[in-house]
Amino acid sequence: MSHSFSDLSRLVLPRSVALVGASDRPDSIGGRALDNLTTHSKFTGQLHLVNPTKTSIAGRPCVPSVLDIADAPDLAVVAVKADAVLQVLEDCGRRGVKFAIVFTSGFGETGEEGRQVEQQMRDIVARTGMRIYGPNCPGLNNINASLGFTFSPAFRFDRKAGPIGLATQGGGLGRTFVQAMERGVGTGLWCSAGNEADLEVSDFIHYMAGAEDIRVIATCLEGIRNGPRFMEACLHAARQGKPVIAMKIGKSDYGRKAAQSHTAAITGSAEVNSAVFRELGVIEVEDIDELVNTASVMARGQPTGHEKIAVYCFSGGTAALAADKVGSAGLTLSAFSDETTRRLRAQLPSYAAMDNPVDTTADVLSKPEIGYEALKAVCEDPDVGLVLYPFPIEYGAVTTSAAASAVRVQGEVATPIVPVWMSDKLGGGWNELVNGGLMPMHSVSAAVQSIARYVDHGRWKQTTSPDWRPLALADPASPALQTELPATSLSEVAAKDILRAAGIDVPRSLTVDNADGARQAFQSLGAGAVAMKIVSTEILHKTDVGGVRLGISSEDAAASAYEGIVDSVKRLAGGQAFEGVMLEQMLEGPFVEVVVGIRRDESFGHLCTFGLGGVSVELFKDVSRRLLPISLPRAHAMIAETQCARLLEGHRGKPPMDVEALASALVQLSELVARHPDTIEEIEINPLAVRPREQGVVALDAVISIRGKEPSAW
Amino acid sequence: MSHSFSDLSRLVLPRSVALVGASDRPDSIGGRALDNLTTHSKFTGQLHLVNPTKTSIAGRPCVPSVLDIADAPDLAVVAVKADAVLQVLEDCGRRGVKFAIVFTSGFGETGEEGRQVEQQMRDIVARTGMRIYGPNCPGLNNINASLGFTFSPAFRFDRKAGPIGLATQGGGLGRTFVQAMERGVGTGLWCSAGNEADLEVSDFIHYMAGAEDIRVIATCLEGIRNGPRFMEACLHAARQGKPVIAMKIGKSDYGRKAAQSHTAAITGSAEVNSAVFRELGVIEVEDIDELVNTASVMARGQPTGHEKIAVYCFSGGTAALAADKVGSAGLTLSAFSDETTRRLRAQLPSYAAMDNPVDTTADVLSKPEIGYEALKAVCEDPDVGLVLYPFPIEYGAVTTSAAASAVRVQGEVATPIVPVWMSDKLGGGWNELVNGGLMPMHSVSAAVQSIARYVDHGRWKQTTSPDWRPLALADPASPALQTELPATSLSEVAAKDILRAAGIDVPRSLTVDNADGARQAFQSLGAGAVAMKIVSTEILHKTDVGGVRLGISSEDAAASAYEGIVDSVKRLAGGQAFEGVMLEQMLEGPFVEVVVGIRRDESFGHLCTFGLGGVSVELFKDVSRRLLPISLPRAHAMIAETQCARLLEGHRGKPPMDVEALASALVQLSELVARHPDTIEEIEINPLAVRPREQGVVALDAVISIRGKEPSAW
Repeated sequence: MSHSFSDLSRLVLPRSVALVGASDRPDSIGGRALDNLTTHSKFTGQLHLVNPTKTSIAGRPCVPSVLDIADAPDLAVVAVKADAVLQVLEDCGRRGVKFAIVFTSGFGETGEEGRQVEQQMRDIVARTGMRIYGPNCPGLNNINASLGFTFSPAFRFDRKAGPIGLATQGGGLGRTFVQAMERGVGTGLWCSAGNEADLEVSDFIHYMAGAEDIRVIATCLEGIRNGPRFMEACLHAARQGKPVIAMKIGKSDYGRKAAQSHTAAITGSAEVNSAVFRELGVIEVEDIDELVNTASVMARGQPTGHEKIAVYCFSGGTAALAADKVGSAGLTLSAFSDETTRRLRAQLPSYAAMDNPVDTTADVLSKPEIGYEALKAVCEDPDVGLVLYPFPIEYGAVTTSAAASAVRVQGEVATPIVPVWMSDKLGGGWNELVNGGLMPMHSVSAAVQSIARYVDHGRWKQTTSPDWRPLALADPASPALQTELPATSLSEVAAKDILRAAGIDVPRSLTVDNADGARQAFQSLGAGAVAMKIVSTEILHKTDVGGVRLGISSEDAAASAYEGIVDSVKRLAGGQAFEGVMLEQMLEGPFVEVVVGIRRDESFGHLCTFGLGGVSVELFKDVSRRLLPISLPRAHAMIAETQCARLLEGHRGKPPMDVEALASALVQLSELVARHPDTIEEIEINPLAVRPREQGVVALDAVISIRGKEPSAW
Repeated sequence: MSHSFSDLSRLVLPRSVALVGASDRPDSIGGRALDNLTTHSKFTGQLHLVNPTKTSIAGRPCVPSVLDIADAPDLAVVAVKADAVLQVLEDCGRRGVKFAIVFTSGFGETGEEGRQVEQQMRDIVARTGMRIYGPNCPGLNNINASLGFTFSPAFRFDRKAGPIGLATQGGGLGRTFVQAMERGVGTGLWCSAGNEADLEVSDFIHYMAGAEDIRVIATCLEGIRNGPRFMEACLHAARQGKPVIAMKIGKSDYGRKAAQSHTAAITGSAEVNSAVFRELGVIEVEDIDELVNTASVMARGQPTGHEKIAVYCFSGGTAALAADKVGSAGLTLSAFSDETTRRLRAQLPSYAAMDNPVDTTADVLSKPEIGYEALKAVCEDPDVGLVLYPFPIEYGAVTTSAAASAVRVQGEVATPIVPVWMSDKLGGGWNELVNGGLMPMHSVSAAVQSIARYVDHGRWKQTTSPDWRPLALADPASPALQTELPATSLSEVAAKDILRAAGIDVPRSLTVDNADGARQAFQSLGAGAVAMKIVSTEILHKTDVGGVRLGISSEDAAASAYEGIVDSVKRLAGGQAFEGVMLEQMLEGPFVEVVVGIRRDESFGHLCTFGLGGVSVELFKDVSRRLLPISLPRAHAMIAETQCARLLEGHRGKPPMDVEALASALVQLSELVARHPDTIEEIEINPLAVRPREQGVVALDAVISIRGKEPSAW
């Protein structure tokens, strides 16, 4: 996989800018953009104004066209009417402009005609090399450099610089994020490319991954236009050690429908998106406030995944609530050292709770020095990775001084202190925390959720190889890769033949086309009992048409079952063709039935799904998912993520099952698909029987669907 | 069940008050309480000051003891040192005081000695009839009457009157709630009785249920001291049509431990608490902000359970996000009538989204009249039960006027409008919504969560009989009630005998004590195959000691299995006694295995747990729970709540199962327990086989534990 990403530094920090459609009307798009650039930005490069109807605007010279500018500007900001946009872009491209930001709306979001104009914009990109940002967008905010290429009247107000990069599609939710910086941290760069005719969220993620002033990347997505580029950009960020936090709209049918009609984006399957995010270490959140909270906690440090939490508070009920949430989130409370306990005892009143969670009691509020010493002792405990400090109430001067103490301690220790300002009264204490850069959260639950994501991300970094890439081909010498696929759709028999060739055991079987053959086959299989199934590429649900009989244990029974199956299928399967009846050894002894599926996703390629078989997968959706390729460690991780792992360990008197063979089978299937990525639409083994340790796995039923043919119903 | 609740109106609205420990030092407890009562309250009754060291305080006369007050005051507010409290309470009781509020701390929360003092307080209650509120509490705030019997310096600031009643244990989280009323609605009455030596949360819920100025009751609990009284109070509230919303700390081990050490409360099992809450229609929430949000949405109207939702917004991305959350929460978007669509078309620009979710586009912000008309059209649609209106950004004058329009529309329509102020910038629009009583939420997710609880509560009211009461006895003539229980613990054979007598089928079985008996028993059962199990009251895990053999299909096999079982049990069960070996017909044909358990909870009595059998109950905890008694409709509701219901409907070619018989069995078990509530600790049937329709259910294994004996491991 290789996807070129342009260097966007001259978009984000242009040396020269042409404002096309500059205006002296303060409420026009061109007028506001000019005001933002001249009055509210610190732009020190060259600014050219372009407007065919003016020779000067606000005392600055103005030319009719970008073609009249002597040196090609790095950036053209386009604020002209929709019907003039294409010609302006043509001129910019001809003039050698590197980037064009197009504010104008009335394109792809209005329908097919507008989408065709966007295609013409891409043609200009292809012809000239100029990259286009927009159309239908509020522009670009490089807040760290105090540059606003935007017509938004809010630019002058929402100006908190900081280490967070934000990439959005629609502008409204991006503004919500930027305004949340009222409570701290700061969004250094906000790219919001609207219809994404050319540059898209992936380009900005990729740029931010390399930008020195950005440490954390947040994104808000309605659709992902190009899956592989998105993956490449996120992997680049991961390799640079910069976490990406994403909110993706489209979890429910209503959301998918609304997002599609809003941006014409392909929203994709929420399950697949989430699985891909987890693979890439992209931290998924569900709402804007979660995006804000998680980004700001991520900006506090580099998690290791081993962080234990201390709760520090001046209210007993609040301390209990916070400890409760820490436990419910699966986080661990630190165990304080003797030294910490000694230091707390030396400061706090005897009736305070000096274990973790710490309840200093409200009496300490009136003695700021004690609060400072106690909090510092907690932060300096070697077992404490992060301190959660909920403030349940605004109490005027005393909470202000407690907040000031927290800021002072944070200046002296590396352990992140995450405060929660639970009250809707925002007073002096709130301001202390905000101004001290501690980014208070609004609720204990929200804070704990973000902290859990912080710790989880540390774990992901620990367990994920930075070299991992999706869709790489496996070793061509491995047996799975020798398998050749036919170009037609496959019967169960054919599918099992392929699995066997790929190194996955299947039951011994014979296919017959008359009752006598069934007798002979039964005898030659020499099994205690056999299953008999109709063989057909057309019949998907064999059981429903009476095409399956189990536990056949004599020659006579086999002959009679043959007749029964054929009669029933002829009656119920409405003329669908079949090739015979398969007799297959029934597997004896203890085993656990699991389900393995690999399915091709339009955006992200093949994903493998694993879970417990039987009713569990259907009723409880207890599955894990991975992009291909699946290595052995990744296969083991997939298995361990599901409840199924507990059954495989040996449950209620059953022996431990052959997890090694199961993991190998996942790898072999992955290699089989890697050899035929464009041919295989889907493989489903349901069930795959996992036998006791060292006895391997057996595929009891299997469907392989070829691309372009009917997929299975699963 | 009958639990007396005192009339608390003279606590909440006393005609005369004695402040014991009144002080003229402004920073003392007694001084602050006096200030709150005289300067910040509108108390028009008689105020007596009591302090043995003063004759006047702040120009008011002061007496040495309550015994010196001529007419017994309704309420004594006690602000004396811990060692003086008991004597003051004795005097108050003797004087005929009706209620005493004790601020003082240093009792039960400090350990056993303090708990004994609280017992002495209860002795005073029992002797004199005076009721005690506290100790270790911040007092009582009757905000609607502008009365503060509290020493809190915050009383003068947090004074928003309103329809919400709040009952808490600890004071800190209660203050968080009261301060959240900065954004609207208002807490009319806040009772926070600290250690609850006498009066407890249940008393306040019961009072608020009858109070005219309270429409919604919120409570924040660390433990429930008396389960039956809590249930009675909540049922009383339900019968008065007043929703109770509860946050209970103690979902995780950390939380349980912290809550116990904070208030010495019995936190109970989180699963049981949640099940009881659902039974009583108590709306459970997980954090204070959720408590605030849900209480304020509940204050907006009486839900029917049929509400469909309209999303109205001026940003497309935000509309998509909101629609997404509505779908994910299982809510339904309204389908607009033609009339609504016509009205929207007449107002909104052509590029607006006029379906639900409505995106007016930001262009409408500058035209407030259009926003008003469009929002009103949506609110007046007959299919719209509630309007969700997210404001993603603070944009100064235009968002202020949009918020003002929303308030104006709400003044003219009954449909609740729930606004979300998503930005952390709180500007003029925020103030409009707050002052207009629309109680803005902080995030779309939070708003949707509260709306979902609102609609769910409507459903609960529709489906729950207002006459339902826990633990009532069933009809004494029903067969289950004829069953007499032995006083000893029970073997499987004995347990099954009881079930059979109670009307629940069990397999035919015979118990034998030698191999020859096994032969004869096999023959006389006349079954295709039998199961053989050791019979013992001591051996709990029969499989683990080789005490179970399945699929025995001949006399010889039965004899040999007898010897095998006895040998193995003698070897592995370490001398545990057994009474013989049971031969039992094995059930044939299709059936679904479910698990039914009834277990006695210390706080709330017997609860029934139902779920799918096999690994599902262990791995996925897919169970439903009900307090006894279980009526037939309640049994059906229990079954329908679980994923199991999908299997019972007839799944993947299996026939529909006998859900009627299953529901009857739940009722019969409930009646069995109702006859022996003090004897039966637990009944577990695992599995109970549910056979095809009209073929009934069969208890394949059963444990009945007698109270005080060893319970099963389940």
